[in-house]
Amino acid sequence: MGWGDLGAFGEPSKETPNLDRMAAEGMLFLDFYTASPLCSPSRAALLTGRLPVRNGFYTTNGHARNAYTPQDIVGGIPDSELLLPELLKKAGYINKIIGKWHLGHRPQFHPLKHGFDEWFGSPNCHFGPYDNRERPNIPVYRDWEMIGRYYEDFKIDLKTGEANLTQLYLQEALDFISKQQASQQPFFLYWAIDATHAPVYASKRFLGTSQRGLYGDAVREIDDSVGKILNHLQKLGISENTFVFFTSDNGAALISAPKQGGSNGPFLCGKQTTFEGGMREPAIAWWPGRIPAGGVSHQLGNVMDLFSTSLSLAGLQPPSDRQIDGIDLLPVILQGQLIDRPIFYYRGNELMAVRAGLYKAHYWTWSNSWEEHSKGIDFCPGQSVSGVTTHTQEEHTYLPLLFHLGRDPGEKFPLSFASEEYQRALEHISGLVQQHKATLVPGQPQLNVCDQAVMNWSPPGCEKLGKCLKVPESDPKKCSWPH
Amino acid sequence: MGWGDLGAFGEPSKETPNLDRMAAEGMLFLDFYTASPLCSPSRAALLTGRLPVRNGFYTTNGHARNAYTPQDIVGGIPDSELLLPELLKKAGYINKIIGKWHLGHRPQFHPLKHGFDEWFGSPNCHFGPYDNRERPNIPVYRDWEMIGRYYEDFKIDLKTGEANLTQLYLQEALDFISKQQASQQPFFLYWAIDATHAPVYASKRFLGTSQRGLYGDAVREIDDSVGKILNHLQKLGISENTFVFFTSDNGAALISAPKQGGSNGPFLCGKQTTFEGGMREPAIAWWPGRIPAGGVSHQLGNVMDLFSTSLSLAGLQPPSDRQIDGIDLLPVILQGQLIDRPIFYYRGNELMAVRAGLYKAHYWTWSNSWEEHSKGIDFCPGQSVSGVTTHTQEEHTYLPLLFHLGRDPGEKFPLSFASEEYQRALEHISGLVQQHKATLVPGQPQLNVCDQAVMNWSPPGCEKLGKCLKVPESDPKKCSWPH
Repeated sequence: MGWGDLGAFGEPSKETPNLDRMAAEGMLFLDFYTASPLCSPSRAALLTGRLPVRNGFYTTNGHARNAYTPQDIVGGIPDSELLLPELLKKAGYINKIIGKWHLGHRPQFHPLKHGFDEWFGSPNCHFGPYDNRERPNIPVYRDWEMIGRYYEDFKIDLKTGEANLTQLYLQEALDFISKQQASQQPFFLYWAIDATHAPVYASKRFLGTSQRGLYGDAVREIDDSVGKILNHLQKLGISENTFVFFTSDNGAALISAPKQGGSNGPFLCGKQTTFEGGMREPAIAWWPGRIPAGGVSHQLGNVMDLFSTSLSLAGLQPPSDRQIDGIDLLPVILQGQLIDRPIFYYRGNELMAVRAGLYKAHYWTWSNSWEEHSKGIDFCPGQSVSGVTTHTQEEHTYLPLLFHLGRDPGEKFPLSFASEEYQRALEHISGLVQQHKATLVPGQPQLNVCDQAVMNWSPPGCEKLGKCLKVPESDPKKCSWPH
Repeated sequence: MGWGDLGAFGEPSKETPNLDRMAAEGMLFLDFYTASPLCSPSRAALLTGRLPVRNGFYTTNGHARNAYTPQDIVGGIPDSELLLPELLKKAGYINKIIGKWHLGHRPQFHPLKHGFDEWFGSPNCHFGPYDNRERPNIPVYRDWEMIGRYYEDFKIDLKTGEANLTQLYLQEALDFISKQQASQQPFFLYWAIDATHAPVYASKRFLGTSQRGLYGDAVREIDDSVGKILNHLQKLGISENTFVFFTSDNGAALISAPKQGGSNGPFLCGKQTTFEGGMREPAIAWWPGRIPAGGVSHQLGNVMDLFSTSLSLAGLQPPSDRQIDGIDLLPVILQGQLIDRPIFYYRGNELMAVRAGLYKAHYWTWSNSWEEHSKGIDFCPGQSVSGVTTHTQEEHTYLPLLFHLGRDPGEKFPLSFASEEYQRALEHISGLVQQHKATLVPGQPQLNVCDQAVMNWSPPGCEKLGKCLKVPESDPKKCSWPH
C-alpha cells in the first residue's frame, strides 16, 4: 500500500471512511517511512527496531539490491536478534501474529521461536498457484503446524480476484482480542495481512465496490476490517487501553498498476526504489482518550519506531547491548513533540539516501536496470526525472543530489550545487552520514543463499493433512536479485 | 492553485487548517473542474454559466490555443452575455467583486457595467513591474475609477516576495460583509484574489512560515483569510444564511514549480493542459446548518455550476434564451444526489477531451510544442506518458485515448483499444460528443486581436492621481498564443 492510497492522504476516490475516521480520531503521520522499499526487510526492521543492514535482512550478492524471503531462501531472522514480542513477554504480554511472517520459513525461523505465542498465517507471499513439483504452494500455519496451502485449502481465484483471506484474518483478530479481553491479559497483535500485494484479491462482498477496480476493492476490505477491529476494541471497553498503529511495509507497487498496484500520491516512483514513493507510508496512531483527536504530525517516523514505542508503552527498556534505530514516539504522540532524527534509505547493502528535516540527499540513484526496464518492468511509470530516475546505478557520493521535500515533495527539482542552501544542507547531512557509517556494524547477510531444498515442501503438520511433498536434493547457490 | 494544494486534498505539508475545517464542516468535491486550463476563460465561464467557446473567451488564431486577457487584448466579455451578478440584481442582491476581474479592461467591459455594484481590484494579472512606457503597470480600481497601480501604489517586492494585497482583499471582504449584514441586504461576494499566481507573494506575517516556500506562504495566507471570512460570517450570525464555495480557476502552474507553482496531487501535468492536473480543482461547499458536515461528493462539477447554483439559491431561473452549461448543484449538496453529466475539456477552440462517469476520452493530446519545450517551458515536469503528453498536437478523433480515472487518476495507462471496456465506454462518450457538437453555437471569439493602444494607459480616475500615460497609436494585430 502506498502513501496515496487512503482518503485521508488524498486518494481521489476517498473510499476509506474507517481509516479516515481513525485519522480524525487519532494522529496522522505525514512523514512516516519504512526501513526498506521491500517487504521482508521492512518487517524485520519493524520487529527488531533495527535497520535491515544490521539485522541481516539484506544481500551482498549485488550492489544495492532489494532482497526478500522467497520460498528458496536459506536465511531468516537470526537468533541473535531480539524481536519485539520476545521482549514484551517480560511484561506479561501474549503475542500473536496474523498474516504474513516473511522473516524466513525454515524451522529455526518460526515466529513461535521468536517470541510469538500464536500464529495464523503464512510464512511468505501468496504468489501462485504452483504445481507442487517445481515449487510448493505456500502453507498456512496455525501456531506450530500448517493447516493447508494457498490455492488448495485457501482459495484465491486469480480470474475473479476473489479470496476470503482478509475475512479469515479479520475474524482471527477479533477472536484473539475477545479472548485477551476476557482473560484480562495484555496483548500484542501484529495484524500483518497480505492484501493489496499482487496477486490482489478481495472477498466477494467487496468485489466491484471500488471506483479503483480490484486494488480498490482490496483497500476497501482492509478499511472495513480496520473499522471492525477498532469498533471491537471500543465495544469491549478496552480502546482507551489499547494503542493501535496502521502503516505499510513499502510504497505502492507501481509496476503492478493500475489493476494490481496502488498510489503513492504526489511522490516519485514506488516500491523497490528509495525515492519517496518507495518508502514514505500512510501512518495513523489511534488511542482514544490519550491521543488528541485530529492530530497531525510531521515527525520523521519509521516502522522501527514501533519497536521502541511499544516497549515504552509496556514499561520496558530497549536492549542496551546493540544499536537500536527506532525511537520512542510517545513524546511525539502524546505531547506533540518533534524529535530531530534522520531517515536512512537503504537498498540492500547501500545507503542510497538520507533525509534530515526537509532535505533529502541522494548518494546513489537507481530505479532499475535498462535490461529490466526494456522488459517492461517500470517502477516509475509515467515519471522520468533527468539524472534522478536513472537506469544505471549512479553514484553521487561526492556531490549528492539534494531535494527540499517541502517545496518539492515529488523530487523533481534538485537544488543547485552552487547554492548556499545546498552547501548548508549538505554539510548537515554529511555529518549525519559520517556518524552513521562510522558506527555501523553490518549484520551477517541472510538473503544471499537460495536452495530449492529449503522450500515449504513438508512443513510441520503436513503428515496429518497428507500434504507432505518430496524434498529435492540440496543445491545451494547465490540468489539472483535483479533490482 | 491545484487540486493537491490543500491538506484536505493530500498536500503532504497539510498547512491549510482553515480550508480543511471548511471541508470538515461542509462538503468536499473531489471531481470538480474548471471550464478551461487558463484563468480568463474559466472566470468568464463561472460568471456566465457557459463554456468559453460559447461566451467568446477563446481564440481562433491557432488551433487549440489557450488565450486570456493581457493588457493589449481588444476583446472582453460581450454585452450579450448575462453575468451572474446581473441576474442576481433581480432578486435584490448587492454584488461585489474583490480582486482580479480578467474579463477585459476596456470601458465597455468594466465589471460595474456587467452587474457588479462594487469593485476593489485589478482588471488583469500582476506581472511586472513595467516601465510605463512599453507597458503600463496594472491599475487597481475602486468601483469606477483607478486608485493606483501595482508596484507603484500597491507594492509587490519580487525579491522578498512580500506584498500586502491579500490582506487588503481580505479586509475589503470583511468590511463588505459587515456592511451588508448591517443593512440586511442580500449579497454576492466574488472574492477573486490573485494570490498564488506568479509572481507569488504573501504579506510579511506569512513569509517563511510554510514548509513549501513562498508558494506555501501564499497558500497559508489564503487559508488564513478564508478562515477569517468564515469566522466573520459566524460572528455576524449569518453563516446559516450564506452559501460559501471555494475553488480555483485552473490547475497549479507546474511551469513555475517549485518556487512559484503548486501541486496537482496525483494528477497529470498542470495549468495550460487538458489533463487532470490542468483542470481538476480543489472545491469545498460550506453552509452550516444546511450542508451536512463532513460530506464528500463525487459529482462531476464545474465552475459553471456556481452560476446555476447561485441562481437557484436566489430563487431565480437561469436564462432560457441560450445554452447554459452549468447545472444546479443544490440537489447534490443538500440531498446527496448524483447528477449524470459530462465534463468537456476545451483548449481554445478545440474539444480536447470529455469525461463521463469515470471514463475520460482524449480526442486531442498536447502539452506544448517542441519549440516551447526546448526553451524550458514544461507543463508536465518529471512526467512523461508515451503518446499522451505529446509535444505535437495529436489527433485521436477516430480512436480516442481512453482512461479509467478511478483505477488510473494519473492518466498513465490508456485502455486497450481492443477491449470490450473501451468499446462500451467510447460508445457512450461518442454519443455525448455528437450531441454536444450538433448543438454548439460558438460565440464570437474575443481573444483574437491585440493592440498596444488598448492597454491600461489612462484608466478612468488617472487624472486625479496624475497617473495618466500617453496612449500610443492604434496598431491592431493578431495576438500570439503559443500554447
